[in-house]
Amino acid sequence: MSSLGRKDLLDIQSLSVEEINLICTSAKYFKDVFTRSVKSVPVLRGKTVCTLFYEPSTRTRISFELAAKRLSADLINVAVATSSVVKGESLIDTVHTMEAMKADYIVIRHAASLAPHFLSKNIKASVINAGDGFHAHPTQALLDTYSIMEKKGSLKGLTIGIVGDIKHSRVARSDIEVFKKLGARVILCGPPTLVPDEFREYGVDLSYNLDDILPELDVINLLRIQKERQKGSMFPSLREYHRLFALTDERLASCKQDIIIMHPGPINRGIELDNSVAECPNAIINEQVTNGVAVRMSIFYLLTGGRPLEEYEK
Amino acid sequence: MSSLGRKDLLDIQSLSVEEINLICTSAKYFKDVFTRSVKSVPVLRGKTVCTLFYEPSTRTRISFELAAKRLSADLINVAVATSSVVKGESLIDTVHTMEAMKADYIVIRHAASLAPHFLSKNIKASVINAGDGFHAHPTQALLDTYSIMEKKGSLKGLTIGIVGDIKHSRVARSDIEVFKKLGARVILCGPPTLVPDEFREYGVDLSYNLDDILPELDVINLLRIQKERQKGSMFPSLREYHRLFALTDERLASCKQDIIIMHPGPINRGIELDNSVAECPNAIINEQVTNGVAVRMSIFYLLTGGRPLEEYEK
Amino acid sequence: MSSLGRKDLLDIQSLSVEEINLICTSAKYFKDVFTRSVKSVPVLRGKTVCTLFYEPSTRTRISFELAAKRLSADLINVAVATSSVVKGESLIDTVHTMEAMKADYIVIRHAASLAPHFLSKNIKASVINAGDGFHAHPTQALLDTYSIMEKKGSLKGLTIGIVGDIKHSRVARSDIEVFKKLGARVILCGPPTLVPDEFREYGVDLSYNLDDILPELDVINLLRIQKERQKGSMFPSLREYHRLFALTDERLASCKQDIIIMHPGPINRGIELDNSVAECPNAIINEQVTNGVAVRMSIFYLLTGGRPLEEYEK
Repeated sequence: MSSLGRKDLLDIQSLSVEEINLICTSAKYFKDVFTRSVKSVPVLRGKTVCTLFYEPSTRTRISFELAAKRLSADLINVAVATSSVVKGESLIDTVHTMEAMKADYIVIRHAASLAPHFLSKNIKASVINAGDGFHAHPTQALLDTYSIMEKKGSLKGLTIGIVGDIKHSRVARSDIEVFKKLGARVILCGPPTLVPDEFREYGVDLSYNLDDILPELDVINLLRIQKERQKGSMFPSLREYHRLFALTDERLASCKQDIIIMHPGPINRGIELDNSVAECPNAIINEQVTNGVAVRMSIFYLLTGGRPLEEYEK
Repeated sequence: MSSLGRKDLLDIQSLSVEEINLICTSAKYFKDVFTRSVKSVPVLRGKTVCTLFYEPSTRTRISFELAAKRLSADLINVAVATSSVVKGESLIDTVHTMEAMKADYIVIRHAASLAPHFLSKNIKASVINAGDGFHAHPTQALLDTYSIMEKKGSLKGLTIGIVGDIKHSRVARSDIEVFKKLGARVILCGPPTLVPDEFREYGVDLSYNLDDILPELDVINLLRIQKERQKGSMFPSLREYHRLFALTDERLASCKQDIIIMHPGPINRGIELDNSVAECPNAIINEQVTNGVAVRMSIFYLLTGGRPLEEYEK
Repeated sequence: MSSLGRKDLLDIQSLSVEEINLICTSAKYFKDVFTRSVKSVPVLRGKTVCTLFYEPSTRTRISFELAAKRLSADLINVAVATSSVVKGESLIDTVHTMEAMKADYIVIRHAASLAPHFLSKNIKASVINAGDGFHAHPTQALLDTYSIMEKKGSLKGLTIGIVGDIKHSRVARSDIEVFKKLGARVILCGPPTLVPDEFREYGVDLSYNLDDILPELDVINLLRIQKERQKGSMFPSLREYHRLFALTDERLASCKQDIIIMHPGPINRGIELDNSVAECPNAIINEQVTNGVAVRMSIFYLLTGGRPLEEYEK
């Protein structure tokens, strides 16, 4: 099997365990490509990738952009946020335009949940969800999965804590789905206002006290705090947040020796975690960035129904 | 003949019928390239294309960008509208800079009519007019021509209606010139304030009543309404505009069965035409977008004085 | 020797005379590449170049962008000025992200002096300084050097005047260093407020009267006046500046016949020099732009420790 049996990557829910493993296996190949002097392969030569970001993003957009370029695709970056003409146009008309121009891939980030799903039914191009509302961010969850696998072999039986603003996090939702699907135990932790009871439906545990759960965790994923949410009194002051939920040096001492520390980035130093923790050997935050490019290359590749990878090696 | 006998594409006026046919013939080749798995050809490998858009535009810029990339050119997109340094610089100095960097093509959109003509006399690079003031938008007119030819074989003897704000439309001016040159009859239609009498000089008919002319038309081109013009009381309310000049389902019933419905995009749904009309089989609005990339590839190719196309096929 | 013995290009100070000559020699090769039909070479194929401009710039950024593309690199342009996410992130975190994505080159412009030096110690990628505060702009100085060499063979024994706002100019600082290193005599000239006494430490002469020094000069470099500085009453009115320090037709008559007239661009016509002077045969302002791309290609190439250039020729 060298392709996913689908044209789109919209969410974790629709992926089988086999497909997730396939994505991780070929991601490993593409990560190896990075260690070479020539970091590119002609997998998408002559294909067109169009990025449509309706919310500002630099890291995720650049990660997709680099993945596409290293696969030798032609990339069109429609900077929707700053594009006056596109602004007045409906999403579907913009996407039909991209399709008419024969884009092979539409990478979309949109504030509306399920916008990518809506698109995928209406166009022939492959749609990749780069984040939709609070709903899903599947490529982030897949890179998180790959990053854990790389260190731990498998997710089966691991206990993974996700800490922070769970309620407003598409990363948390997609992480929960993929971690559970692969057999991990998941504990969500944060202030009660940000860890709503309805998340129990996912089959996860909830905690409002980080110190209680820390000793059990094999992996901790610290979500980025959106400072602008503080106004809504959704969470205490940043100082209070740090006191209660930050991974500090003291707290690190109570963790398993081989705990993996993750963060989707960009980190707020001194808020979600201390500087020294961010730079300790257990933290794989920069490695996640590297893996993000590899996982996105893998997804592009597997959605093409492409030839076996060895054929791209001269 | 595999090139245009000129270095620039500035307007329709300076093109011969043979040259227009040549552009359409090679556009067909490039459109066929799109249907392949590998959509690119090395026609402009090692050439540099520079886009200079002094007015915001997404669709036209992306169409040129994609055309250049699919021809394997190196593309530099000088986003003038957001570029503070270039803003303070005169057009000619910016273009001399691009020329000094050995750009082979300057694709320019500018609010001043004839800005591209002025440039073309002062630099060695090929200048392509991507829209200058109310004056001309030749690549749009050529893609419109190609789109009609594709459906009707030839423009000779066709009756083509152009509906809307003729007065402020560079698309209308360039369309009129190319349609007349190829032997079509052209009828302009819209509110009297927007269809000035001086257009009679082009040898076209004028009408202020859409229902009068509809049964005669082989092709209708519905121009985009610029809502901001409404303030100047140049035309009635949008609702009134729709009542008088929109292509509605009812009006479609009075058209020839095989009428071609065109629009330069992006469409204002429910203003220039009804949703159902935009999606009926007679509408070729998305096809025009596809053809736009092909026609622009053809123009880039023919201005290089390049080798016969079959030589680019391995 | 086909590489610089270092991973970064941060300033002139750290370059030996041999290295400066090496950069100029291979720049000549790359400039020759421009005269061909195919302007690109696969020197950086599969390498990733990331531009990080914390100050707005179009000319320098495009010059680097074009250099990278003509070397067949994959280019990521992080438009920091307009990138909301990156804005809130520290420089070092942004750069670690680029490094994690396996960028091979970081081209950085930053308002803080020595920001590129700070980076270079913290990452493995090659850092190229594209201008840091008032401190240095080494690639501009190297292209100025190359431009003079091309006309005069060598800088040894030449008398070079640099005129204008010396105090706030990183170009002036880097020019002084490279010109002195290569054996030229340098005279700085401008209003006393903008030509501070401490520059004597560089071993240069100072003058506040352009007419006094003009007859001696083999080369004159006219710096761009930043009009916004006028508010701080750092210099007289623009008219007064022109009267005292502009290279006018009358002043040109008192210059050596073969004086070379340079300007880093973009020029303020009628302020630093008259229109007719900017277009006279002695002015090499556009040639400097061409040379800028060649010198930047040369620097990219020499920092890779790449193969001899003839091997890239098929």
